[in-house]
Amino acid sequence: MISSIKRFLIGRPLKSTELGEQKLNKTKALAILSSDALSSVAYGPEQILIVLFTISAAAFWYSVPIAIGVLILLTALILSYRQIIFAYPHGGGAYVVSKENLGVNPGLIAGGSLLVDYILTVAVSVSAGTDALTSAFPGLHNYNVLIAIIFVLFITTLNLRGVTESASILAYPVYLFVLALFILIGAGVYKIVTGDISGNLHEPIGTPVAGLTLFLLLKAFASGSSALTGVEAISNAIPNFKDPAPKNAAKTLTAMGALLALLFSGIVYLAYYYGIAPNEKVTVVSQIAEETFGRNAMYYLIQGTTALILILAANTGYTAFPLLAVNLAKDKFIPRMFTVRGDRLGYSNGIIILALASILLIVFFKGQTEHLIPLYAVGVFIPFTLSQTGMMVKWIREKPEGWVTKLIINSTGAVISFIVMLMFFLTKFAQVWSVLIFLPLIILMFHRIKKHYNAVGDQLRITTCEPALAVEGNVIIVPVAGITHVVENSLNYAKSLSADQIIAVYVAFERDEEKKFEEKWNEWQPDIRLVTLHSHYRSIINPLTKFVDTVQRKASEANYVVTVIIPQFIPKKGWHNILHNQSSLLIRSFLLYRKNVIVTTVPYHLKK
Amino acid sequence: MISSIKRFLIGRPLKSTELGEQKLNKTKALAILSSDALSSVAYGPEQILIVLFTISAAAFWYSVPIAIGVLILLTALILSYRQIIFAYPHGGGAYVVSKENLGVNPGLIAGGSLLVDYILTVAVSVSAGTDALTSAFPGLHNYNVLIAIIFVLFITTLNLRGVTESASILAYPVYLFVLALFILIGAGVYKIVTGDISGNLHEPIGTPVAGLTLFLLLKAFASGSSALTGVEAISNAIPNFKDPAPKNAAKTLTAMGALLALLFSGIVYLAYYYGIAPNEKVTVVSQIAEETFGRNAMYYLIQGTTALILILAANTGYTAFPLLAVNLAKDKFIPRMFTVRGDRLGYSNGIIILALASILLIVFFKGQTEHLIPLYAVGVFIPFTLSQTGMMVKWIREKPEGWVTKLIINSTGAVISFIVMLMFFLTKFAQVWSVLIFLPLIILMFHRIKKHYNAVGDQLRITTCEPALAVEGNVIIVPVAGITHVVENSLNYAKSLSADQIIAVYVAFERDEEKKFEEKWNEWQPDIRLVTLHSHYRSIINPLTKFVDTVQRKASEANYVVTVIIPQFIPKKGWHNILHNQSSLLIRSFLLYRKNVIVTTVPYHLKK
Repeated sequence: MISSIKRFLIGRPLKSTELGEQKLNKTKALAILSSDALSSVAYGPEQILIVLFTISAAAFWYSVPIAIGVLILLTALILSYRQIIFAYPHGGGAYVVSKENLGVNPGLIAGGSLLVDYILTVAVSVSAGTDALTSAFPGLHNYNVLIAIIFVLFITTLNLRGVTESASILAYPVYLFVLALFILIGAGVYKIVTGDISGNLHEPIGTPVAGLTLFLLLKAFASGSSALTGVEAISNAIPNFKDPAPKNAAKTLTAMGALLALLFSGIVYLAYYYGIAPNEKVTVVSQIAEETFGRNAMYYLIQGTTALILILAANTGYTAFPLLAVNLAKDKFIPRMFTVRGDRLGYSNGIIILALASILLIVFFKGQTEHLIPLYAVGVFIPFTLSQTGMMVKWIREKPEGWVTKLIINSTGAVISFIVMLMFFLTKFAQVWSVLIFLPLIILMFHRIKKHYNAVGDQLRITTCEPALAVEGNVIIVPVAGITHVVENSLNYAKSLSADQIIAVYVAFERDEEKKFEEKWNEWQPDIRLVTLHSHYRSIINPLTKFVDTVQRKASEANYVVTVIIPQFIPKKGWHNILHNQSSLLIRSFLLYRKNVIVTTVPYHLKK
Repeated sequence: MISSIKRFLIGRPLKSTELGEQKLNKTKALAILSSDALSSVAYGPEQILIVLFTISAAAFWYSVPIAIGVLILLTALILSYRQIIFAYPHGGGAYVVSKENLGVNPGLIAGGSLLVDYILTVAVSVSAGTDALTSAFPGLHNYNVLIAIIFVLFITTLNLRGVTESASILAYPVYLFVLALFILIGAGVYKIVTGDISGNLHEPIGTPVAGLTLFLLLKAFASGSSALTGVEAISNAIPNFKDPAPKNAAKTLTAMGALLALLFSGIVYLAYYYGIAPNEKVTVVSQIAEETFGRNAMYYLIQGTTALILILAANTGYTAFPLLAVNLAKDKFIPRMFTVRGDRLGYSNGIIILALASILLIVFFKGQTEHLIPLYAVGVFIPFTLSQTGMMVKWIREKPEGWVTKLIINSTGAVISFIVMLMFFLTKFAQVWSVLIFLPLIILMFHRIKKHYNAVGDQLRITTCEPALAVEGNVIIVPVAGITHVVENSLNYAKSLSADQIIAVYVAFERDEEKKFEEKWNEWQPDIRLVTLHSHYRSIINPLTKFVDTVQRKASEANYVVTVIIPQFIPKKGWHNILHNQSSLLIRSFLLYRKNVIVTTVPYHLKK
C-alpha cells in the first residue's frame, strides 16, 4: 500500500547506474538554480527605493549609482564563484573553500549559515508567493499557512522524483518570467526613447539632496544587495551538472549573472526614469508594468509569473541544500543519513529534512516570514565573505599563473561582501541578532556530532582497538513461561548450538506454583537444568535481569559469553499484538540496553 | 527518575503476600462501593418530579406511590443480589450469573454493558461534580474539562495506591454526606410534625389529575429508578472484602440498601410535602435545604457534600470495573493484561484503561455528559434483568431448600427491572439507541478475542500440536558492513556456536568496491566464506532478505535452522541514536516478521 503510493508520487526506483541520466544540462540547470537569484529582482530594487524614500523622493536618483555598486558586487561575485567552481569542481561552495583555506571553523560558519539559509529561502519565498496569490484571491487569505504548506509539499515531491524531472517542469515558468521582464524593460526603454514618457518625472542625476548620509547610502546598498542572494547556489550544485561539470556550471553561472545584471539594471532604471515611489500596496515592478502597458494581459502575465517565480525560488534551496548537506555529512559534521541516495537517486533525506524544517518555520511564523528576509540576507553574505577571503588566501599561498588578477577579483568581492554584511548588522540589528546566537550553537552541534563519530570510529577500527576477545564458551539462558510448544522449540534450538551450559529460567509468583512447575519440568525435560526464581513483586524483568547479571559476571571471568534465547510471537494480524503481553520485547530491550549479553529472538509465527 | 515519581505518587511496591492487608472492612467498603448508589439520591427524586411536572404541579403527589414502587424494586434488587453474593462468592456479579445460567452471550451482554457502564459512571459523575463546583465559582467555568480531567487523575492515583488507601480517604466525605442528609430529613420531618411547614403546599394524595397516562407514570418510575444504578457494584467486588468475604459483602449490601431507602424516601417525602417544583437553576435537594435551614452553614454543608459525593461516585466504577475485567479476562474475552496485579496489588491495567476511556469521553463531550445519563441507566438495567433471570433459572434447575421464596424474590426483581429497561427504550429511545449498536459490536469483539486466544493455545499446547522439529544443524549468516571491531566480535561469537556453516554477507553498491572488499576480506578472514551481493537500488534490506530466503529454503529441507547475527550499537546518550543508521533494527524487524529465521542481536555498547 504505502509503497505503491510512494511509487505513484515519486516514480519507480532508479538503479545506481542510471545516475548519469539524472544530470542537468545548462538550460535546465539555469532554470532551477537561478530561480532564487532572478526572483530577487522582484523585490531588490524596491528595497533600495524604500531606504532612499526615508529622506525624500528627491533622493531616488541615488538608486542609479547604488545599482552600479550592486552590479560591481555582482560581477565580483560571479567572477569569484567561477574561480571557485574550477578550483573545487566537486561542489560544496563556500563551505569547502572556507574549510580548506581558512580552517575548520570558518568552514562550519559558512556551511552552517548556508544550511539555515536554504531553509529560510524555502520558507520565505513560498510565503511570499502565497501572499501574492492570496492578494489576488482574497477569499483564500485565511488559508495562507495551509496553501504555503501545500506548495512546499508539491515542490518536495517534485524534487523527490529527481532533479531532472523537477527541472523539466520548473524551467517553463522561470524562462517565462525572464521573457516577461525583458518585454517589460524593452517596452519601457522604447517608450523612453520615443519620448512617450515625460523626462520630468525624476530629478536629474547629481541633484543635491539634503540630509543624506553615507550611512543611509550604505544601508540602501545593503538592501539592494539582497537581490544577490542565491548567486552561490550553482557552486554548491556542481555534481548535478552533466559532464564536463565544472565547465558547464561556470557557463551557467555567467549566463545567470548576465541575466540578473540586465534585469536588475533595467528595473532600477525604469523605476528611476518613471519616478516611481515605493508603496505598501503595489510593488515597484507592478507600478512599472502598469505605467508601461496599462492593466492589460501583459500586466497580468508579469504579475502572475512574478508570483510563480517567488514560489519556485524555493527550488534553488532544494537543489543546493542536499548537496551541501552531503559535504557536511561526509566530513561527519551532520548525521550520515544525509549521504544516502533515495529511490530516485536524489539525496532524499536532505530534501525531506529541508521540507520539514521550512514547514515548521511557516507554521511557527503563521506564514508571516517577511521579517526573516534580513536574517536570510545576512546568512548569505557571511559565506560570501568567507569564501572569497578563502580564495584570497589560496591565491597568495599557491600563486598560480595569473594569480594577481584572481586575487584582485576575490579581494574586491570579499571587501564589498564584508561591508554589506556589516551594514546588515549595523542597520538591521533588531532583525539579525539571532544569527549571533544560533550560528555558534549550530557549530557546537557540528563539533559534538563529529566528536561522536570519531569516538565510534576509534572503537570500531581493527587497528586502534584491542583485538576482540576470543569466545571460550557459551552459556545459554532460556526464560520459560510454561510447558509449551514454543518453549520446546527454543530448547531444541539451544541444544543445537552445542553450548557449554543451558539453563532454563522460570519466574514464579506463588510458592505452590513453583514446586508444581519444577516437578512437571523434571518429567518433561530432565536433561535441562531449571532455575526457578520467585518474584515477590509480580515483575518478570527484575528477578530475570538479576539472574542474568549473576550468570554473566561468572561467565565473563572465563571469557564465556551469555546468550538469552527469547521466543517472540508474531501474530497474523496487527491488532492481535495488544492481546499478548509483549514481555519478550520488554525483556529483550532491557537486557540489550543494560547488560552485556547477546539476545537471540526466535520468531514464532502464529498461523491463526 | 520515572520510577521515583511513580513511587511518590502511588507508594512503594507491595509484595504479593501483603495482599491480605489490601482487603476492605465493611465500613470502608460501604463508603467506596455505595457512593455511586447514594449519590443518585441527589438527582433521582428530581427526575420523577420533572416527568410529573410535564402534566401539572397537581400530579406531584404521584411521586409518593412511584417512590414506593422504586423502594419495592430496590428491596427486590437487594435481596436478589444478596442471593447472588452467596451463590457466586468469587464476584463477577451479573456477568458470572448470566453466563452460568443463561449462556455465554447473555453473560457477555451483561458484562459488556457493565464494563461500558462503569466508564460512563466515571465520566458522568465527575462531570456532574465539576459542574456543581464551577457553578459555585463561575470563574472556573471555562476550565470545566481540565478540572474534570484533574479529578479523574486524582481518583486514578488514589486507586493505583490501592483500594484500602483510597477507601480510608474517601470514607469521610461519603459518611459526611449521609449524615448531612439525615440531619436535613430529620429537621424537615421535625418541622412538619411541629406544624412549622404549612400542610397546604401540596395536593393531598389521591387528588385526581387530568391527562395523566399510565405511560407517563411508567416513565416517571423509570426515571426514578435511575437512583438505583450502582446497586450491583458490591456483587462485582466481593474479592476486595475481608474474610469471610461473602458474608461481609452481603451485610454491606443490606446496609447500603437501608441507607438508600431511607434517604430516597425522605427526600421524596419532603419534596412532596414542601410542594417543591423542579427548577433548572436550583436542585430539589437545594430547595429543600433552603426551606428547612435558610441559607446558613448547614445549607452550604449539604451543597458541598453533594458536589463531593457526585465526584466520588466515580470511585465505585474504579472498584468494580477492574474486578469485572479480571473475570472477563480469565475467560479470555478481553486482553490478558487485565489480570495482572500492579505494584500496589490493584489491577492497575484495568484502573488505567478506565481512566483513559473516561477522560476520552469527557474530552469528546466537552464535559457535557448529562445526555449520557439515560444510556448509563439502561446499561445498568440490562444486567439487572439478566442476572435475576439467571438466578430464576438457577433456582428452578437446582431447587435448593426454600427455592420457591428465592424464586419469587428474583422473579419480582427480574420483571420490574425488565419493565424499567423497556421504559427506557420506549420513552428515551433517542438517547439510548446507540446501545443497540455498540453492545453487539462489543460482544463480537469479545468473541474474536477469545477465538484468537484459543487458536494460540492450540498452537502452543504440547499435546495438540505436532512435536517441535528436531534441529539437525545450523547455518549462521553474518551481515558485515566493513572490516571493523564489531564484525570481528560477531564472527568470534558465530564461530563459538559450532555451526555447520558460517556465511558473511556484504552488500556492495558499486562494482569496484565489491572486488576491493573481497580482497581485503580474504586476507583478514580467510576461513570464513564471504558472499557479496550487489545492490542496484542502494537498499541493504532487499538483497539481504532475498539471500536469507534462498539459504533458508535450502536449509529447511535438511531441518537446518538459519540464524542471522546482527550487531547493534548501543550509544551512551539517547540523542546519538539519530547519528546511526539503525539499519540493524530495520534488518531485524524485517527478518523476524517476514521470514522464518532466528535473529541474534549482539549489543555493542559504545563507551564514548
